[in-house]
Amino acid sequence: MSERLVVVGGDAAGMSAAAQARRLRDAGDLEIVVLEQGQDVSYSACGIPYWVGGQVGERSDLIARTPAEFAARGITVRTGTRAEAIDLAAGQVHTAGGERLGYDRLVVATGGRPVRPPIPGLDADGVHGVHRLDDGAAIRTAIDGLPGDRPRRGLVLGGGYIGLEMAEALQRRGLEVTVVLADPLPMQLLDADMGERVCAAMTAMGMTVHTDQAVREVLVDASGRACGVRTDVGSYDADLVVLGLGMGPEARLAADAGLALGPTGAVDVDRSQRCRDHPEVFAAGDCAQTFHRVTGEVAHVALGTHANKQGRVAGSVIGGRPARFAGVLGTALTKVGDLEVARTGLCTTQAEEAGFAYRTDTIEGTTRAGYYPGAEQVAVKLISESGSGQLLGAQVVGGPGAGKRIDVLATAIWAGMTAEDLAGSDLSYAPPFSPTYDPVVVAARKVSRTEQG
Amino acid sequence: MSERLVVVGGDAAGMSAAAQARRLRDAGDLEIVVLEQGQDVSYSACGIPYWVGGQVGERSDLIARTPAEFAARGITVRTGTRAEAIDLAAGQVHTAGGERLGYDRLVVATGGRPVRPPIPGLDADGVHGVHRLDDGAAIRTAIDGLPGDRPRRGLVLGGGYIGLEMAEALQRRGLEVTVVLADPLPMQLLDADMGERVCAAMTAMGMTVHTDQAVREVLVDASGRACGVRTDVGSYDADLVVLGLGMGPEARLAADAGLALGPTGAVDVDRSQRCRDHPEVFAAGDCAQTFHRVTGEVAHVALGTHANKQGRVAGSVIGGRPARFAGVLGTALTKVGDLEVARTGLCTTQAEEAGFAYRTDTIEGTTRAGYYPGAEQVAVKLISESGSGQLLGAQVVGGPGAGKRIDVLATAIWAGMTAEDLAGSDLSYAPPFSPTYDPVVVAARKVSRTEQG
Repeated sequence: MSERLVVVGGDAAGMSAAAQARRLRDAGDLEIVVLEQGQDVSYSACGIPYWVGGQVGERSDLIARTPAEFAARGITVRTGTRAEAIDLAAGQVHTAGGERLGYDRLVVATGGRPVRPPIPGLDADGVHGVHRLDDGAAIRTAIDGLPGDRPRRGLVLGGGYIGLEMAEALQRRGLEVTVVLADPLPMQLLDADMGERVCAAMTAMGMTVHTDQAVREVLVDASGRACGVRTDVGSYDADLVVLGLGMGPEARLAADAGLALGPTGAVDVDRSQRCRDHPEVFAAGDCAQTFHRVTGEVAHVALGTHANKQGRVAGSVIGGRPARFAGVLGTALTKVGDLEVARTGLCTTQAEEAGFAYRTDTIEGTTRAGYYPGAEQVAVKLISESGSGQLLGAQVVGGPGAGKRIDVLATAIWAGMTAEDLAGSDLSYAPPFSPTYDPVVVAARKVSRTEQG
Repeated sequence: MSERLVVVGGDAAGMSAAAQARRLRDAGDLEIVVLEQGQDVSYSACGIPYWVGGQVGERSDLIARTPAEFAARGITVRTGTRAEAIDLAAGQVHTAGGERLGYDRLVVATGGRPVRPPIPGLDADGVHGVHRLDDGAAIRTAIDGLPGDRPRRGLVLGGGYIGLEMAEALQRRGLEVTVVLADPLPMQLLDADMGERVCAAMTAMGMTVHTDQAVREVLVDASGRACGVRTDVGSYDADLVVLGLGMGPEARLAADAGLALGPTGAVDVDRSQRCRDHPEVFAAGDCAQTFHRVTGEVAHVALGTHANKQGRVAGSVIGGRPARFAGVLGTALTKVGDLEVARTGLCTTQAEEAGFAYRTDTIEGTTRAGYYPGAEQVAVKLISESGSGQLLGAQVVGGPGAGKRIDVLATAIWAGMTAEDLAGSDLSYAPPFSPTYDPVVVAARKVSRTEQG
């Protein structure tokens, strides 16, 4: 007797769940229907800044798989179909079209919701989010403008990675760029000493960065278009405003249905992505709460990598194979100009909140042997537990080749390694790729050496 | 009462030992004398191919610290001073100048000895090793040649990383390059399927690669200069011959003194780099035997990174602080043209020899999001224990950005992670740096998925 899996939301988490469930159960055993309110499924929102910036040519480049490709694998994708309600008692999803679609298993993968503070003017024309491909298309259209009426000044609200990436994209397209942030520095998940490097690089690129300024109003001209923002400190003109204020969970559908949310505001799930009181319902991706690998505490980190993996876990369980999500470290990587910016695990604020006795060690090194052409500066900061030396977090900021080194540190933290373990480890060396001691090892040695007194 | 530490050999291991001992014990407590037969200490032999190739301008660029800099730190370096014998009973080193220098502690850091098979002509003019900076200088002089008499054809014997790097260096300097190797493929510490990629890249660069051909003779012209080589298959003309046949331990001084060698022919030491029967004597670096982290078996891997760390361990122990060397994975990284080539842990031959039931999984991916400019192909091969999924070894071959990914795999193997652990880990993602799933994770997932049946 065939069951039906309904997936609400057709991006990373939803499509990973559908694909994995299909791998494990064939169409005669499990019908799979995905409801997606937009027109695209399985798209790379992370690629939008590069599409706007011109490094990526076509919208279609950002689409990993089309509904037709999923159909060929026995997964029905209904785009333009919004789920309006979930009836947990009846086991039905109500669509905006009035349909009541029964399910045996349900995956809630409604994704994230861009943070939009309640300030006047935020809905005006000329204010753009960076969430869906349509947002990217709108920004591209705005930049291309009418002949003689192209925007000249771009203003980005927020200094997280989307803010940074959009600031660079606008600058690449010839706009004067101003970045306004409420925080004292960009990249709040970096410690201040590392965030200062990012801020300095943005300024050196010719961007204007206004920090510590919460936006109070988006200024709107007579035609109803955004023409700037006002903060407590001043007003800044703009022809185009982009919102990069972060991403919260889009959990309204789940909450309205009576599914429990966690303290992060995201759907509460167990480690198999299952809603605790409704074992037939799963949530995955940006709408779902998860947990931090180091602290064990609940966390919400909106990122495509986790969405993919969590969707896959849900799909496995639905497919009959036990699976557990292994947690997040909050690893993140971006670049602004040539400066690569990466972090993983706990920053000092997080380590303190989590109750760790911790220490920090920062070193300066080079990406290649100092004598090899293209050797660039890199700073590595480690946060480790005092006494035990267990690695808790790491930050890397530096020139080309610096950023991906965060993966070594993420792997070490994942495995529970101490700084001394990492200091002894056998990393690769060749002059075009690193100094004899890779900067991550130099940092680990610094911890290890001083821990020994 | 002051003690004296004598260090024989002033490169990576010797100078690391001296520096670390000095950090822990001051000059009033420990006199430190380093005997170095050459003129340079603390130099980067690994940089020689890039000095020859022109990426590095000056010999001095390859020297990390001069004898004067060590002297300023209270370390006496006597260059041009060859140790001829060690008298263990008397606790003395005999120098070539007839001096008998007493020691309380001794570090043997005599380094490696380039493999030189017993074939006629190998000592002829025009045949160059790649061991000391003087070798690099000689090759540079030969390439610059007399006006109108510059060498046109370069021949490299051996296809390990020094062979590859020297082949590229000669080609950069305008020579036609032929590489002759006794093995069926270059980079014998790669599996054949990965080695084939390297071979293909060399050929695509315009190098001629002759495999499976042991050299029987270096051909010498009437003036006594090397003019080619003869193998079982054919003869190949050359104006310049470079030896890249690998590096064995230079352990004659130790052996002659009666220090025990291990089955690798290198000095047998415990994990604190101490000679078992002579606790006042240590050996470190290319002359010393070490052990493999995965197999626990003895190993000899001549590499600057290990030399530095082992020297540091010896220096710590001499300085009164317990320390242990943590083993090697045989991590190695190089490039030929734009192809980056990296390996760590056990290759299939080594896994088989070590008695593991193993499986291999290879995936093809890209270094960046497929839609991002500069995304290059990368192949990742994992060797893992059947059943447990424990990672045993890894190989990465691909375009720019591929190679340093080996460090994630080396860290995972170091920590004893399984493929499933790695598949779940939180590695960084951003389109300019990787696809959503980094290729190393894709490879780990492949193992993990198929292990689950």
